Amino acid sequence: MRFVRFADAGGRQGLALRTEQGLRGFLEDDPGGPGRLEDRLGGGEAALEAYGRALAAGPAIDTDAIAWLPPLMRPGKILCVGLNYRDHTAEVAFEQPDYPTFFARFASTLVGHGADLVCPVDSDQFDFEGEIAAIIGKGGRHIREQDALDHVIGWSLFNDASVRDYQFRTPQWTVGKNFDATGAFGPELVTARELPPGARGMTLQTVLNGETVQSASTDDMVFGVAELIAIASRAMTLEPGDVLVTGTPSGVGMARKPPLWMRPGDVVEVRATGLGELVNTVMKENAREC
Amino acid sequence: MRFVRFADAGGRQGLALRTEQGLRGFLEDDPGGPGRLEDRLGGGEAALEAYGRALAAGPAIDTDAIAWLPPLMRPGKILCVGLNYRDHTAEVAFEQPDYPTFFARFASTLVGHGADLVCPVDSDQFDFEGEIAAIIGKGGRHIREQDALDHVIGWSLFNDASVRDYQFRTPQWTVGKNFDATGAFGPELVTARELPPGARGMTLQTVLNGETVQSASTDDMVFGVAELIAIASRAMTLEPGDVLVTGTPSGVGMARKPPLWMRPGDVVEVRATGLGELVNTVMKENAREC
Repeated sequence: MRFVRFADAGGRQGLALRTEQGLRGFLEDDPGGPGRLEDRLGGGEAALEAYGRALAAGPAIDTDAIAWLPPLMRPGKILCVGLNYRDHTAEVAFEQPDYPTFFARFASTLVGHGADLVCPVDSDQFDFEGEIAAIIGKGGRHIREQDALDHVIGWSLFNDASVRDYQFRTPQWTVGKNFDATGAFGPELVTARELPPGARGMTLQTVLNGETVQSASTDDMVFGVAELIAIASRAMTLEPGDVLVTGTPSGVGMARKPPLWMRPGDVVEVRATGLGELVNTVMKENAREC
Repeated sequence: MRFVRFADAGGRQGLALRTEQGLRGFLEDDPGGPGRLEDRLGGGEAALEAYGRALAAGPAIDTDAIAWLPPLMRPGKILCVGLNYRDHTAEVAFEQPDYPTFFARFASTLVGHGADLVCPVDSDQFDFEGEIAAIIGKGGRHIREQDALDHVIGWSLFNDASVRDYQFRTPQWTVGKNFDATGAFGPELVTARELPPGARGMTLQTVLNGETVQSASTDDMVFGVAELIAIASRAMTLEPGDVLVTGTPSGVGMARKPPLWMRPGDVVEVRATGLGELVNTVMKENAREC
């Protein structure tokens, strides 16, 4: 199943299921609707599918009249992984660590499919990072690797857009990864059974203004998704709706000579087999030139 | 005013105000109560004080029958600052950066006053970091430094307990700062007008098993709270209930020879003028020896 969060013209949020007859669903506060997606993530794929069937019984949603939102607006954790494709680690001249390089995004950075990614006024080093996102269903701590994929309820795409000068201004990448409107997430939450286990063997691509700038197989991840979940949950309880953003392959703009930064008016797409296309435009904050 | 979040014997959450007659308040789901603290943070100090007066009209809370919880359970952002006291930067052999070293904690790490700080099974390098926490009331972006303190609705104490081997295992500190039950936060949310502007001129101390291991003036912060808010909000929208954890002074366990790690059974207290005492015991996860 494929779930879409949207806002109607009045800014009210809703959830829809993609069906053969297009999107069908409900506004979130519709008393006839099935309630909140977030409340169904911890109950396993059967509970989520029941929710999807309830959405499918709803009215048709006119895709021309909605804005796409991130599939989850306020994940408890957005746990990102740096340096998780060897070619990328090499191009940015880091050593390949023997433990995942986790870092955090806040939910305040998220935008949906079709929205603007915003290059801040303070920087012109705005870079793309196409990634696969795993969405946690059943929570847990000390999850074994062999059980880890049972905790993934679904998948989506992520553009972990990065403000490079801020990312490297201190020893911690946090600020460069947490400017408003720099984390594109979507377009859909695709349930786990629609994809290969662990999202293995999928082609992940980033396309900037029609040119493919990143292309890799998800098999090239240094730490696969099951391993990432096992390792992260040694430290922290994973909760329903937490999002694991699994790292970007080579080809980022900062590693090119000359660097290839995203500029106002650019169109950036992240694509992966079975997950559709996450398309965003780039704008400059306050319309000042990038 | 001083607000306390608590859990009763049945695990139900409530909010109380400290009054001359002790704690008075309501369970959060009590229809006679004033609702959620979080909903009052964005409305300024007057709205928060009205909430406090409503709590003060509630029944007495028996402090022997409650557990203290963090003043906020699920802040949207917990934005921590590393290397914000020069003596500490020197003792851990970092260069003093010219920009704040922000890093992130997730809400899943939080515990309240009186709770156990949990040393994970995977480490014996469990360190203390006493800090002052600023709680954001009115949100905003691009907040000017001269206006920044108007955005602080209150203050609290924080023990940013750190799992040092994990903190330095990769270029990012994230995992070492995000083990479950390592972020002690409390005991109270103290409204801003109870403290000096910007929490300046206060003595901040950490006491381990009765011995003072950290002691500094908040005037020694490299980046003061107003400056931190101005700088952070250049990047991200600060929202009501976000928490800014402002950094630790020198004296941490890792910088000592030999290192002074927290061990099971230890009692660790963070104190600051006007903010009370945040006292926690240390336990080993699964009771394995540290």
